[in-house]
Amino acid sequence: MFRTHNCGTLRKKNVGEEVILAGWVKRVRNLGTVSFIDLRDHYGITQLTFYGKNPLKKKADQLGREFVIQVCGKVAERKSKNLKNTTGFIEVVVSKLRILSYSKIPPFIIEEKTDGNEDLRMKYRYLDLRRDFIKKKLITRHKIVFEIRKYLSENGFLEIETPLLVKSTPEGARDFVIPSRTNPGQFYALPQSPQSFKQLLMIGGIDKYFQIVKCFRDEDLRSDRQPEFTQIDCEMSFVEEEDVIKISENLINYIFQKIRNCRFAKSFPRISYKEAIKRYGSDKPDIRFEMIIKELNDVIPKKNNRELIAGISIPGCANYSIRQLNDITEWSQLHHIRNLTWVKCLIDGKYQSPFFEKKYFKIFYDRLGAQPGDLLLILSGLDDQTVRRQLGKIRIEMAARLGLLKTNQFSPIWIVDFPLFVWNEDQKRYASFHHPFTSPKEENIYLLKKNPEKIIAKSYDLVINGKEIGGGSIRINKRSIQESIFKILGFSRKEIFSKFGFLMEAFEYGTPPHGGIALGLDRLVALLKGEDSIRDFIAFPKNNSYRDPMIGTPSYLSDDQLKELHIFIKR
Amino acid sequence: MFRTHNCGTLRKKNVGEEVILAGWVKRVRNLGTVSFIDLRDHYGITQLTFYGKNPLKKKADQLGREFVIQVCGKVAERKSKNLKNTTGFIEVVVSKLRILSYSKIPPFIIEEKTDGNEDLRMKYRYLDLRRDFIKKKLITRHKIVFEIRKYLSENGFLEIETPLLVKSTPEGARDFVIPSRTNPGQFYALPQSPQSFKQLLMIGGIDKYFQIVKCFRDEDLRSDRQPEFTQIDCEMSFVEEEDVIKISENLINYIFQKIRNCRFAKSFPRISYKEAIKRYGSDKPDIRFEMIIKELNDVIPKKNNRELIAGISIPGCANYSIRQLNDITEWSQLHHIRNLTWVKCLIDGKYQSPFFEKKYFKIFYDRLGAQPGDLLLILSGLDDQTVRRQLGKIRIEMAARLGLLKTNQFSPIWIVDFPLFVWNEDQKRYASFHHPFTSPKEENIYLLKKNPEKIIAKSYDLVINGKEIGGGSIRINKRSIQESIFKILGFSRKEIFSKFGFLMEAFEYGTPPHGGIALGLDRLVALLKGEDSIRDFIAFPKNNSYRDPMIGTPSYLSDDQLKELHIFIKR
Repeated sequence: MFRTHNCGTLRKKNVGEEVILAGWVKRVRNLGTVSFIDLRDHYGITQLTFYGKNPLKKKADQLGREFVIQVCGKVAERKSKNLKNTTGFIEVVVSKLRILSYSKIPPFIIEEKTDGNEDLRMKYRYLDLRRDFIKKKLITRHKIVFEIRKYLSENGFLEIETPLLVKSTPEGARDFVIPSRTNPGQFYALPQSPQSFKQLLMIGGIDKYFQIVKCFRDEDLRSDRQPEFTQIDCEMSFVEEEDVIKISENLINYIFQKIRNCRFAKSFPRISYKEAIKRYGSDKPDIRFEMIIKELNDVIPKKNNRELIAGISIPGCANYSIRQLNDITEWSQLHHIRNLTWVKCLIDGKYQSPFFEKKYFKIFYDRLGAQPGDLLLILSGLDDQTVRRQLGKIRIEMAARLGLLKTNQFSPIWIVDFPLFVWNEDQKRYASFHHPFTSPKEENIYLLKKNPEKIIAKSYDLVINGKEIGGGSIRINKRSIQESIFKILGFSRKEIFSKFGFLMEAFEYGTPPHGGIALGLDRLVALLKGEDSIRDFIAFPKNNSYRDPMIGTPSYLSDDQLKELHIFIKR
Repeated sequence: MFRTHNCGTLRKKNVGEEVILAGWVKRVRNLGTVSFIDLRDHYGITQLTFYGKNPLKKKADQLGREFVIQVCGKVAERKSKNLKNTTGFIEVVVSKLRILSYSKIPPFIIEEKTDGNEDLRMKYRYLDLRRDFIKKKLITRHKIVFEIRKYLSENGFLEIETPLLVKSTPEGARDFVIPSRTNPGQFYALPQSPQSFKQLLMIGGIDKYFQIVKCFRDEDLRSDRQPEFTQIDCEMSFVEEEDVIKISENLINYIFQKIRNCRFAKSFPRISYKEAIKRYGSDKPDIRFEMIIKELNDVIPKKNNRELIAGISIPGCANYSIRQLNDITEWSQLHHIRNLTWVKCLIDGKYQSPFFEKKYFKIFYDRLGAQPGDLLLILSGLDDQTVRRQLGKIRIEMAARLGLLKTNQFSPIWIVDFPLFVWNEDQKRYASFHHPFTSPKEENIYLLKKNPEKIIAKSYDLVINGKEIGGGSIRINKRSIQESIFKILGFSRKEIFSKFGFLMEAFEYGTPPHGGIALGLDRLVALLKGEDSIRDFIAFPKNNSYRDPMIGTPSYLSDDQLKELHIFIKR
């Protein structure tokens, strides 16, 4: 037995007990007449004490940081107690000391505040994990995942594993593929999501499915993207949009209550995609704060082919200095935003602006719903969508500057009524706004033939604090409609058959109405902990080049391996 | 709303209610004056009734099997009740009928007893899933997995996801590999197990880890093997063999109690590898029955270079006919077993044997622990191991013939004291008996230099009813020992560094003593349900050629895809 207790459990009531502890040497303090060691393990820190007469004191003084040791000793009450530490009332006076494992000097400080940069910490991820800061994130993730499973299981969902060796399909992002040794020239693919399989489960008569599952996308490298990520994947039969939304709200409410002890309204607000873009300049609106975008086109006579003029009111910023205003202008230009100007609505009812005629001030003030002391930011441009998206960005930036992006406040909203298709001007073809299995609204089906871009989808995205936490839809369950969709997306009959033949055929054997949702677990966990980056919530993340610098992957294979797999490397 | 109730919930207390149901048409019975439909969904079957006057009766009579329909109607008490069905007390007298989805005639009968062969059922797996028989297995699997997570979480284990895009390493079976698009010529590999990562978690100070995780092995095709399988993976710090064994026993006891309402002794029996081979001719002994192998070498004078003569006593088979005995001989020959002979120990105390001299009968009888009425099977051969393994096979075969392989009886046993290495005569080198990270017993470490084959490992396998359910070990936590092991296994310094450098380096930063176990989930679930084949417990299994005939994978990629991945197919 390596220990009788762990380093986080000894309390006043244990005083006098003989104990055995094991853990890492966090630090050694030699005060001459006495030496202290902070012994750390997963559960906490316990102070070990070596008095001057103790023959072990010399050995203790020579221990290095991160050595793994085992000690026997007697629990004693501390003279100077440390009330910050749960074990701070006691110390262990050591009578036996054994070194279990030595350590070189770690390449960075293993404390909440570390001197290690991200590259170094990724290379020595196992040392980074020893930091309380990272460890607590993994503990939270475990807890969240367990609660999700518990909630869904208790609500009749079955967790069913779908395969990871699947078929490469042309929709969506690029697949990671796997050469088959036993089927020369053929490949498996890793799933971008279990979409087809969860639909097949519904066709197979499973009523409610979920899975917390790894998904894979070989996307172009971007910061804070991971090639493998984890999804909470749900699907239900005999449901409509309303049912999926309700169940998702209940799940989100349950998790936020368990983890953050916070509750939302039973129904989250909903907004159409069109309205979200209009009001917030984004289909992932952050509604923790107002600053709604308002059009001013009717106020100012049109000139210079300008398409749109619109603005937002920034609360309490009328007192911004020239320097602060220049700073905003600079930021805008960095983000390719031109034609941004401002109107100060001073507290005394006066206005200042470098641009607009006086007569517009009060009209702007009223239209943008401003208060005395607000700063109006006004933008114009040729493209409606661009102006709105830029104002959306400004909105977030100003909220950040004003400290309105509070990490302990959560504001969920559903985005609904998405278009089914989006026109890709480069490729001169339609693409799915979400994915090709999304059902159109019944009343729009007639538009499939002549006006695909007008079709509204039965889909819904869940956005919290401006982050897309999940999305889903009611799926198509009729072969004829699915075929029409594929055709609009530019697939030939042959392609449809070779890639999705199995699903087309399955549709012909009694496919129930069904739909579902997928929530991004990494993102949700980070949000619940009030953080932006998902990386620290993943035990062993890849870097921005999709590499793991610790284990050194990807790496080269031997010629024998390549030969067995029937492939050559192109050099 | 598609339904007010599902098809498994209506009872006597609902009589008189107006309800909406949806589901699949299981069958239509038109009795002239009345038609009945069995409506099936995930939860059960409800009888729909259409009386003669009902204008919907004609529509109902025309419904095909597996059509998906929605009905409104009133719950009524049945005239002839079906007590086998939980909804058998009531019927729903239908007032509205809507077809939600049509179905072609299914390619096989969707009943417990089906006419579909395995190939056909795999191609239409989504129809096979509609059979209660398969669906119940997935429900059981869900339940078992949830209970395992609950138990481990409540006992302080953290579920931590380890990556699936890892590094190809040369130990063990073949890896499935994934070309990297952004790192030309380089590959990721899918993990054969999270071994390195769970050890790194321990080095990272996580105390107790678990994960229910997909693992991948590109092994030679064998029946009932899956290229991807699911493992219950556990690892703990500051533990010895005894700790891991104890925790595993508690977990197994918990699951068997929850799922089968059966309890084992608090400690399972243990046997050394050597003793298991000796007594049972197998390191996966089925101890639901006795028939222990006993040596007879000292009884019969040695001749013909014979190495070993040994036998087992088969209870109650002394009355076997010549035909039955020939049958056993035939079976033996099919399995390449020669020199098998028998002695009948008749109830009246007499003996019969075609081979041995009379004087040996009583000695055999005593030595093999026989009872009057038993049949002694005796085998001799040149190779000790072969004779024992063949007797082990005979032992299982006879138990099967005698109906002793009871699926409702569970007999766990630990196999311990495995050798660390096994000599591969073909390749003239040592291989790991389990894997290269297994720690040798302390008292054997001195043998690393001169006598590797004599080293006993700190490893343990859990066997239940003759199936290997799991295995684990205490791991090496010292770089020098790990390096010695790799050298004995034939790795060059360069190979060690390039493949396992990260682990070697990690060992130098304070590695705690640690160990763990991995249980095969698919196998465990099948065992709990008393079945041999794991395939039906997997929603979408691959066939014996590692193909999924339903979705058609593996499949060919487009030239564009191959080009992006920097690989050529060898034709």
